[in-house]
Parts: sequence; structure tokens; C-alpha cells
Amino acid sequence: MVENTPRIVTLTTDFGLRDPYVGIVKAVILARFPSAQIVDLNHEIQPFDILSGAWSLQFSLPFFPKDSIHIAVVDPAVGSNQRRIALQLPYSVILGPDNGLFTPFITQAEKAFELNNAEYFLETVSSTFHARDIFAPVAAHILNGRKLEDLGTAIELSSLEVLKNFACKLDGNSVTGSVVYIDRYGNLVTNISSELATNAAGLMFQEKTLQIASGSYDTVDDGTAKVVRGSHGYLEIAMKQASAEKSLEAKVGDTVRLESPQI
Amino acid sequence: MVENTPRIVTLTTDFGLRDPYVGIVKAVILARFPSAQIVDLNHEIQPFDILSGAWSLQFSLPFFPKDSIHIAVVDPAVGSNQRRIALQLPYSVILGPDNGLFTPFITQAEKAFELNNAEYFLETVSSTFHARDIFAPVAAHILNGRKLEDLGTAIELSSLEVLKNFACKLDGNSVTGSVVYIDRYGNLVTNISSELATNAAGLMFQEKTLQIASGSYDTVDDGTAKVVRGSHGYLEIAMKQASAEKSLEAKVGDTVRLESPQI
Amino acid sequence: MVENTPRIVTLTTDFGLRDPYVGIVKAVILARFPSAQIVDLNHEIQPFDILSGAWSLQFSLPFFPKDSIHIAVVDPAVGSNQRRIALQLPYSVILGPDNGLFTPFITQAEKAFELNNAEYFLETVSSTFHARDIFAPVAAHILNGRKLEDLGTAIELSSLEVLKNFACKLDGNSVTGSVVYIDRYGNLVTNISSELATNAAGLMFQEKTLQIASGSYDTVDDGTAKVVRGSHGYLEIAMKQASAEKSLEAKVGDTVRLESPQI
Repeated sequence: MVENTPRIVTLTTDFGLRDPYVGIVKAVILARFPSAQIVDLNHEIQPFDILSGAWSLQFSLPFFPKDSIHIAVVDPAVGSNQRRIALQLPYSVILGPDNGLFTPFITQAEKAFELNNAEYFLETVSSTFHARDIFAPVAAHILNGRKLEDLGTAIELSSLEVLKNFACKLDGNSVTGSVVYIDRYGNLVTNISSELATNAAGLMFQEKTLQIASGSYDTVDDGTAKVVRGSHGYLEIAMKQASAEKSLEAKVGDTVRLESPQI
Repeated sequence: MVENTPRIVTLTTDFGLRDPYVGIVKAVILARFPSAQIVDLNHEIQPFDILSGAWSLQFSLPFFPKDSIHIAVVDPAVGSNQRRIALQLPYSVILGPDNGLFTPFITQAEKAFELNNAEYFLETVSSTFHARDIFAPVAAHILNGRKLEDLGTAIELSSLEVLKNFACKLDGNSVTGSVVYIDRYGNLVTNISSELATNAAGLMFQEKTLQIASGSYDTVDDGTAKVVRGSHGYLEIAMKQASAEKSLEAKVGDTVRLESPQI
Repeated sequence: MVENTPRIVTLTTDFGLRDPYVGIVKAVILARFPSAQIVDLNHEIQPFDILSGAWSLQFSLPFFPKDSIHIAVVDPAVGSNQRRIALQLPYSVILGPDNGLFTPFITQAEKAFELNNAEYFLETVSSTFHARDIFAPVAAHILNGRKLEDLGTAIELSSLEVLKNFACKLDGNSVTGSVVYIDRYGNLVTNISSELATNAAGLMFQEKTLQIASGSYDTVDDGTAKVVRGSHGYLEIAMKQASAEKSLEAKVGDTVRLESPQI
């Protein structure tokens, strides 16, 4: 790393933006590392929606530079005895709860640690605001050169929580997946990679076969749901200048299936 | 520019803040120019509302320092063959689609370029996320010293798309304009400059004449819509501690008229 | 302060995030002090809700480093003859309207000034956007080394506006307070310090006694409102993975009472 290059810390939470919670987390980091470049990745994950959180990270982290630190907190079980972890990836570090939120990164992780060395936490740790009390000061310690080994106990990668419904399932000539993320425009992002659809005619959704369009949202005719090869690398169900979520009454978890894909 | 002075990049989009899209755009910029000062200007432009986007830029850009780069993406036609452009203004650069979003700046622009040199884009360009794949890397190249001439082909300023309903119309002693932006408070910002109202008694809206108040929102009596000289330099229809948008069921595009202004 | 350490400016407003207003305030600061670290603390204070604004500041400011500057604008009376003030705290400076928003900090303030030296404002001051026209340029002048004494007239701390309903009231063995902040999750934050509840059995709310839980949100059973010792140091009424605000139809200002607390 070039000397004096600002270091990035990203934040992904279900805190929303109507409260000062995100700003408080930033305060704790900046008080200990004033030149951090803190990037808000997503604070509007629906409360407790770990699956959408995992996919939001999957879409985003590949674009960040080497040595970024990613804090992600979607944590319905905050305050329980669930572990708080640090994952060492080849190019970055992830901090957050061990609840499946980091499913997309576990196979590429090099090491994992349970964050249990309270010396690096805020002096008083609340039972409900670990982003402020644990993850923010730990991130600042890493920025200041502290090694992950000092922050807690090494744990087995195989012991980490994994989301069962994260990936799609391949079975012969069919691929069964689900809607894993719905964005502001009401586009339904699935967990079926666009590459799997190279030869597919359509995607089954709600007992109908939706046509796979060749182009962008703009080429999708008004009024009809179509499938596009989305910008994140996965199939998306979309409608031209309309919300597929509302029109189809879709939700995260809904099943999709790719027929005869000749994989 | 002073050596080491952070350079500003602003972002104006209709992406909203519930998805990681804005954070991903920042990642692409920061990965290539780590000390950029990225400022979120507006991400809650209603999807595809180019007029509000243009006015949001009009309210904002004059306050930014020299050499700022402004990325603006409100782009219903993303993925079509619409041009992506860079505008060289006297003090800054604007990047975005050629769809009228930059109407307020075309008369002061010095040069325009079609961004068509894919060498400066991300390696893979999706058909739906040009902010990430085209505008963000192009902004980073400009920050790193690349000239606009290198990024694409010079085009005529007269060939750029212009919004027909952007400006108000003067006709003898009357000025006809429209509501062009509605803010969080429900204030209706018009495209009639406060200067035009110096001698006017009232503003016609929904077949009623609304009185032009002399002072601020606070002096507008409860329960009655009044017209104030707004902070952006244009007439606004407002109600004291209430939403004129809701009370009057107003929307962007609604007509307003200034009577006998003795311009 | 270490040379070249970025200086923090925080923003707390009721501007919301759907308009470019926050970005414009940042522009004015950065145009005059390019390396400022600007932190959004809270822009979703309900319009004109001074009490929630005061509590949002109370939760947040202790975590910021020395020499931070805090701009807070929740200002229903903008444009009236209400004073605009700067408060010198031991470790930081607060800028905003004199309307009670700074109630939690007045007892620790060292000095107060009325910001009335227009030399440090923008050239044209609107009657409705003082964050842009007054507080932002004043903050930049402070960052650039200007003393508060130069920015306006010293005023008595005792003359500052104070919110009457900010603190709870102790009366013998009972403590009467109120809901002072409701967060995204629908948790009802009260102004009764957790320390006051050491020996209390329950909190009276809506004529029922709610049990004080020993742990976090996660230990609060589904379906029943319980009281937790919140992360801000105050009692909160919460429901496990549900909104106490909606279930109890609660609002800011609702009364709570701690019985027989044996203080």
C-alpha cells in the first residue's frame, strides 16, 4: 500500500438512515483513524434479512480496492452468544456476526477469527449495538496496523455459519434458484448466474415461463415481465419502467427455475 | 489547483439509497483515485424524472469548487443507443447521458464529447449500470489527469438533447411556468425566477391567485398556500409547517402563471 | 491537533435525503476547506421535531473526536428573528439555531456566541436555508482557524433556549419521563437513564407495567413489549423483531413512569 493512501472502510447494515446510528459508527472509527475513507454500502437491508445482506455484499465487494475493510451487521441475534468474526480474504477483511451473512466469501477466505479480545472493544459494550462497540473499534485497530491474530481466537472456516438458500441448485438439465434481492426499481435479482442461461429459452416464475431478453431494461416491452442478464452477473426479472416486485407481488425467497439449459 | 487538495466528485442519480449501487460507484472511483472527496448530491430523484434531476443540478452545482466532477445518471433509456457525454464547463466537468439532464448547463458549456473510448471503461460494460461501468472509471481517469479529448469524440453543443419544459415562457406581461421540483417539505419549486416577480401581486395556480409573501416559510400563515422567494432563486409555493404538495394535490409539471409582472 | 489530521464536521438536520440540500451544504464547506471529513449524523429528524433532534445529538456527540464541529439544523422558525448560535464545548463546537436543540449541552458549554457577523456568511443570505448560507461558511471559517469571538457577539449561557420536556423528573420514589426518540426498529427510547432503574421492577406505560428485561432485544419474547437497558444509556421499550411503535401506537412525548425505584 502506498504511504498516505486513504484506507477504505465500508458499512453494510440494516440500521436504515433515519437514525444517527451509522454516523456514530463512523465517529468511533474516525476518532481512532481520522483519514479513513468510509463508504456507505447499504443501510437499507430490511431488518434481519440476512440473505439480502449477503447478496448485497456479493454484488459490491469485488469493486473495492485491496486492503479495504468491510463491516457488515445484519444481526437479528445481537446480544446472544453468537460469535462475532473477522474473515481474512485475499484482498480484504470482513467483520461482522457469524450468522451466514458472509456465505459468499467463506470459500475464498484464508483465515477466520472470533473477535473475543475485549481489549480492542469500546470500554463498555452494550448488548445491542456491536457495530459501535466492537466492529468499529476493531476496524480502527486494523487500520492502525493491528493483526487479526491479536484481535481474537483463530477458528475453523468449516465452523462458520452458511446460508442454505444462498446458491441455486443444479439438477440435470434444470436449475432451481430463488429471488435473493429486490432493488429499488422492483427488479427481482435471482441467484441464477447469467452464464447458466446461455441456451435457455425462458425462466419459470409463478408457473409461467418468462422470456429471456437479449438486452437491457429499456428493451423490455411495457407491461410484460421479462428476464434480463443483470449487471451483477445474475438473471433478473424486470419490467420496463415499472416494478416487477409490485406487478407480480414477488418477494425474496420466491422460487425460479431455468428449464433445459443444456449446461 | 493546490497539490494534494482533495478533488470532489458529486453523484446525482435516481438509484435511491436502499441498494448498494451508490456504494459500488464509489468503489470504482476510489479504487482508481483513493483520495477523491465524493459527495452525494441526490439519489432520490424519482426514477426516470429527468426534469427534477436537471433542476436538482441547477440548484447545487454553483456551490461546488473549481475542478469538481459531477456524475449525473437519471437514465430511463440506459442500454439504448443514446449517447453518453462529458460536458466541459468553465469550472467543472459533467458526465452522464445525453437526454436533457444537463439542459441548464449547455449554454455555458465550452465543449462536449461523446464518451465512446471503451479503453477507459470497466473491462465488461453491462447494459444497465453505466454509472459503475462507464461514468465512474471515466471520472477516475479525469482525476488522474486524462483529458476529455482522449475519452471520446468531440460533438456539437447544438446537437445535445434539451428539455423543452425546463424554462418558463415570457409573453408580454405574463410569465407561464411550471412546478419543476417538489422537495421533502412539500414545497413546490417553480421555474419562475424570483426576480421576475418584483412587481407581481400574485401567482396563478390551480385557477387561484396565490399571494407572494415578503418573507420566509415562517411568515406564511398556517392553512393557506403562499408564494415565497425561495432559497434557490425561484418562486416556491409553500405552506407553514405543512405540505403544499399534499394539500394542493400538486405534482411536477403543474402550470403556474405570473400575472402583470411589468417585467 | 496533529498537523494534517482531517477535521470532522457533522451534520444533523430535518432536511431528509431526497433533496440535494445536504449535498449543497457540503459543497459550501468543501469549497472553503477541501479536506474536511463531513459525517452525516441524522437527516431524517421529523420536520420541526426539535426534541428528537436534541436526543439524536445526545446519543452521538460523545463518540466524536476532539475539535469536531457539529452543525445541527432543525429549525421550524428559520427566517424569524430567532438567534443563530455557536456553543463552545470543552472538546467541540456546535452551530445552529437557538431553539432548544442544544439543551443537552448547555450545562457543559463554556461560551456562547450569537452568529451575527455577516462577513462570514455567504454573500446573499436567503431566509430559508441558513445551513447553506450561514452555518456551512461559518464552520469552514472555524476550520480555517477563525475564532468564535470573531464570528459574533458573546451571549449569556443562561439566555439560551432550553427544552422543558427534555429531561425526566424525579419525585420521591417515582421518576416521570417520556418517549423522546423512536428509531427505525420502532424501539421507544425514553429519557430515563438505565441507572435509575437498578432496583425497579417495571416501567409504567399506557397504564400497564412493562417488565425490565435483563438482556438485549433478542431476549425479549416475541409479542410482548419489554423494557431493555438501551445502548444509549436509557431505558427503551422494545419488542423482539417487531415494532413497539406500531404495536403500541406510541409516539414521541408519550409518558413513562418508573415506580418505587429506590433511587
